Amino acid sequence: MANIRDVARLAGVSISSVSNLLNNRISLMSRSTRLRIEQAMNELDYNPVRAAVPVKDGQAKIIGLLVPSIVNPSFSALAHEVDLSARAYNYRVLLGNSYRQEDEERAFIEDMFSHGVLGIIVAASDIRKTHFVRAAEKGMTIVSYDNRFPETTASDTRIFDSVSMDNTQAGYLAAQHLVERGCKNIIFATESTLTMSRSHKIEGFLTVLKNQRFSLIERIVEGKACSEYGDTEMFELGLALTSKVLATTPFPDGIVAINDALGIGLMTGLRAAGVQVPHDVSLVGIDNISLSAFAEPGLTSVMPPQSEMAQVMVERIISRLNDPTLRPGEFLFPPTLVCRQSVKASAA
Amino acid sequence: MANIRDVARLAGVSISSVSNLLNNRISLMSRSTRLRIEQAMNELDYNPVRAAVPVKDGQAKIIGLLVPSIVNPSFSALAHEVDLSARAYNYRVLLGNSYRQEDEERAFIEDMFSHGVLGIIVAASDIRKTHFVRAAEKGMTIVSYDNRFPETTASDTRIFDSVSMDNTQAGYLAAQHLVERGCKNIIFATESTLTMSRSHKIEGFLTVLKNQRFSLIERIVEGKACSEYGDTEMFELGLALTSKVLATTPFPDGIVAINDALGIGLMTGLRAAGVQVPHDVSLVGIDNISLSAFAEPGLTSVMPPQSEMAQVMVERIISRLNDPTLRPGEFLFPPTLVCRQSVKASAA
Repeated sequence: MANIRDVARLAGVSISSVSNLLNNRISLMSRSTRLRIEQAMNELDYNPVRAAVPVKDGQAKIIGLLVPSIVNPSFSALAHEVDLSARAYNYRVLLGNSYRQEDEERAFIEDMFSHGVLGIIVAASDIRKTHFVRAAEKGMTIVSYDNRFPETTASDTRIFDSVSMDNTQAGYLAAQHLVERGCKNIIFATESTLTMSRSHKIEGFLTVLKNQRFSLIERIVEGKACSEYGDTEMFELGLALTSKVLATTPFPDGIVAINDALGIGLMTGLRAAGVQVPHDVSLVGIDNISLSAFAEPGLTSVMPPQSEMAQVMVERIISRLNDPTLRPGEFLFPPTLVCRQSVKASAA
Repeated sequence: MANIRDVARLAGVSISSVSNLLNNRISLMSRSTRLRIEQAMNELDYNPVRAAVPVKDGQAKIIGLLVPSIVNPSFSALAHEVDLSARAYNYRVLLGNSYRQEDEERAFIEDMFSHGVLGIIVAASDIRKTHFVRAAEKGMTIVSYDNRFPETTASDTRIFDSVSMDNTQAGYLAAQHLVERGCKNIIFATESTLTMSRSHKIEGFLTVLKNQRFSLIERIVEGKACSEYGDTEMFELGLALTSKVLATTPFPDGIVAINDALGIGLMTGLRAAGVQVPHDVSLVGIDNISLSAFAEPGLTSVMPPQSEMAQVMVERIISRLNDPTLRPGEFLFPPTLVCRQSVKASAA
């Protein structure tokens, strides 16, 4: 699925120019620029909901984005993609950090109502909490990112859209890759709070172990992120998990990290303990943050199609704001594996 | 200077609770919580402009923040600090990415006016451009981050606040540290577009070379970030500069990188070429992104006091919105050196 950035690139113009055309602000645009953009949109089959929809009274052309922390590289990348998609519709992004605190979530919702912002993307919060449900009932259009509904939710009772990577598949891909490279003793390193998306990743991981008839005992190494970790909590948690990984007997030959930041922190800790990745143990992360290419060694990771996911989230919000009878849906995106240097070419 | 986070930590409450007290939303707050917060504020001498100032008609309690790209870890850290400071005044942060494009800057300003947002922080853009000047003349309160005025600007003609690290001092600290560790042949690796802050860093670097009577010839190794680099442009540029650094004769024993991301990319490139940091060459970055602690080796860096700077920016905007007769000022913050493992304990 092409997005506004692809169109801008192909046409050789700025994103603003594409946005201007989409929003009919073309008085200052040259004919040749306009043609180039239209041609690029055609070629890429880019056909967004037209943005020039009248905004209802009291509604701002602003989408709220609530993330645990914008410093977490997974969420700064998400914010970037959401901003790009929103710009195509002439929307702006209002940012909130929840710090995984319920009162921050509540304050964010209140403030969005008071600013006339009626569409929000909620990333990695438990969307089933009362304050989100109440907000939806009061007219807030909510898209939940990376937090699927329980399988038992009937589709006609859904009040949120859910956009997520197929996390079960992500856990499966990561573990299966280690097995294909010859690993026989793999563990999963994670934050211990069981969110829906974490449970799914672990489920995919365990499926591989079952298929291989590997032992399922003590395969999950976990720790709690503490608020003292601050801005780099997932890196710090990875570092803190090092001692637990080192204490695992027999010592594993492969590790899946619940996210890349935790994986990079774990690599730092293992290195300090004299354990070399991938020589002594292979490592795969999940979510493919941009840094993983610059880690040492480069971190193999499972990648969500974040640009497409952002586009769908923004389009769902705008479509539902324009047509409140639209039913919320579930959108699941398949991940892919990005191979770098943190997995042995072929383990013993 | 304490901020809202420090108060929350010391009182053992959430940032929201402090914000609630500051904004007089105390109907649901227990007496003991209130006392704890007030005590913490006293102890830390935290005394913000009271936030419960009536907002003028048509003005949103929103601060706009325009950064080159939120994916750049320097700017996601900034966004985080600005959000924390803004929350203390019950303000929210509306995010814009300029991608260093003038038309994105213009579109951002237009949108802020149309959303009733009359205070913005502009990070790392050339604030002297016409569209910023016009916006200020039309009533936009602007704080420029990391882009000082030219020395020739008379203080009574200023129309923007400027909040910046002392970049000359930053370049000086980085180079001086290399010299103190015994380096005799140091270079400066940078993006080639000469912003004010980059010029100042280079100036500080060259001062050290002059003091040491080192040669000043071909000491700046530079390259242009291209838009194809995408989200990781500074890392990619560092990687791309590797060949130029390798071609420097005699081979340097110390490098100052204009920012940490460029430094980490350069380390990745040097490693691939068989050059070990710090064994073969020492490296110091500037801006101390959170990742630098997790680079291999940990990157020594020059750190701006970003939390204090964010607090001053937010307070300047709110103070000037409340009292338009206030004169814009220049606020310069001293950096400090953070030592890690990328500089040799003592070079030959």
